[in-house]
Amino acid sequence: MSTPPRLQGVLSPVLTPFEDTGAPSHERFVRHCRWLMEQGVGLAVFGTNSEANSLTLGEKRKLLDALVAKGLSMQRTMPGAGACAWPDAVELTRHALDAGCAGVLMLPPFYYKGTGDEGLFSYFARVIEEVADARLRIYLYHIPPVTQVPLSLSLIERLLDAYPGVIAGVKDSGGDWSHTEAMIRAFQPMGFDVFAGSETFLLRTMRAGGAGCITATANVNPTAILRLYRHWRGEDADAQQAALDRTRAIFQAYPMIAAMKAAIAWKSGDVAWRHVRPPLTPLSAPASAQLEEALARASFDIPAARELSFVAARG
Amino acid sequence: MSTPPRLQGVLSPVLTPFEDTGAPSHERFVRHCRWLMEQGVGLAVFGTNSEANSLTLGEKRKLLDALVAKGLSMQRTMPGAGACAWPDAVELTRHALDAGCAGVLMLPPFYYKGTGDEGLFSYFARVIEEVADARLRIYLYHIPPVTQVPLSLSLIERLLDAYPGVIAGVKDSGGDWSHTEAMIRAFQPMGFDVFAGSETFLLRTMRAGGAGCITATANVNPTAILRLYRHWRGEDADAQQAALDRTRAIFQAYPMIAAMKAAIAWKSGDVAWRHVRPPLTPLSAPASAQLEEALARASFDIPAARELSFVAARG
Repeated sequence: MSTPPRLQGVLSPVLTPFEDTGAPSHERFVRHCRWLMEQGVGLAVFGTNSEANSLTLGEKRKLLDALVAKGLSMQRTMPGAGACAWPDAVELTRHALDAGCAGVLMLPPFYYKGTGDEGLFSYFARVIEEVADARLRIYLYHIPPVTQVPLSLSLIERLLDAYPGVIAGVKDSGGDWSHTEAMIRAFQPMGFDVFAGSETFLLRTMRAGGAGCITATANVNPTAILRLYRHWRGEDADAQQAALDRTRAIFQAYPMIAAMKAAIAWKSGDVAWRHVRPPLTPLSAPASAQLEEALARASFDIPAARELSFVAARG
Repeated sequence: MSTPPRLQGVLSPVLTPFEDTGAPSHERFVRHCRWLMEQGVGLAVFGTNSEANSLTLGEKRKLLDALVAKGLSMQRTMPGAGACAWPDAVELTRHALDAGCAGVLMLPPFYYKGTGDEGLFSYFARVIEEVADARLRIYLYHIPPVTQVPLSLSLIERLLDAYPGVIAGVKDSGGDWSHTEAMIRAFQPMGFDVFAGSETFLLRTMRAGGAGCITATANVNPTAILRLYRHWRGEDADAQQAALDRTRAIFQAYPMIAAMKAAIAWKSGDVAWRHVRPPLTPLSAPASAQLEEALARASFDIPAARELSFVAARG
């Protein structure tokens, strides 16, 4: 059994499309994943921006199965497999490994707050020991603004000591560059791959020696983000970063998930893309109109208009 | 199909015992539930203090089935049925209704923060409309210190307007008496039963016209809590409340769930009761020794020593 290649570069928490009934739309999901892969973006399916915690375990298993059935490569796929209940995390992780995924992105259990390093260590240890599979590669998911459960440097150090090779890296969505930088300095040299949680920190992450970024906006602006990843040593890197920031700001003026879905619905003409699952709500009609106007204006800033050509995904 | 009687009084989020393997212990669970019922305590199984979010949906279904199989009455049982994914909440709610439960206690979806009343309304509405059962009675679970997702008065009002009879009450674990009081004033007269989230607010809740309390410490101190509920108009009510507060403080000096389990393990001699699920950790040996000492001393304060006689549960 071979170990998948180490993940680097740009991955996206893939938006999860829904049918009018509210069920996940397998067809749109596979099409969008294939399009992202064709752009060069890896698939961090079942992330925060995928509404993963609004999906059942069974729904996630089936969505992953759909990608495998349609022949998408799992070697650049890193499903979110975290859950509040460790047996759920174990089940989804095993399913991901059996599907051939390169690794899993794992939230800490996020219901209880303040359980401390000891409690979080015991959780990850339990998952690792129950999965008991040499192929296991865990990317820790640090997103305290949402989970309210931060992953401390000392916790990561303890996990790396106990499970070298299994603890493979982190997605840092904390929004605090000093924390990302500290992780890169302390752990990247040990083969622990630090991914920025958004392209906002992509250039700084690459300059500091990190592995890339896992970012929601890669759903809608993949080419420009990948270009900076590939050419971060170039003279225009700072200008590229500034352009990425401007595009991101357009979406960040709204609830991000609903806004990205509204943008895809608009560009593709497929209105079902607007669906989100409660407790999220779709963008209102006036907000959608505003967003479309901003995106239309921004096409001058964005290096190539086709980067927002979701229409390609319908081909 | 008859509607179960309206719930009032004292209920307890039942502690979930585990086997040495980490699996839920059905035998201990049934025994403890039966003992609580014999004391007069209703069963709010699958609450925060039950480690419900550390259990899988399948484990919760089976635990509930075990109670039914052993002949426990479901008419004073209110399982927690909330989940981040609405289809999970729907499945567990339907299972609870089919088991004959009096109602379900429902957390808001707690992964996303700041989704606002609109998002939370859409979530509860979706669950109610999918369950589509006239027997449905939902008790809202307001516990912002843990969920970071408060349920506002305006949300409750909107839900009551849209689903009268279905929105049956609330467990208020916010720790803010003015919020509990506001809910009692605004909604209790409409048949919306307000339960204090702990016995700390029991006397104030009864004096204000509320329905009772749903409290973790009913696992370990049921008799005294029930006595105050039954005799809150008595002259010694304030003294009774003060005694309850002293007993609670003993447990609150530690992580509550681990401390209550350690107390049951000590009193019953059944060490398996110490098990908690990650990310929680059991009480350390020194802390357990301290707790046991404090409980032994406190038996003078506590109206009757048998109130902590967990040994009765083994009979």
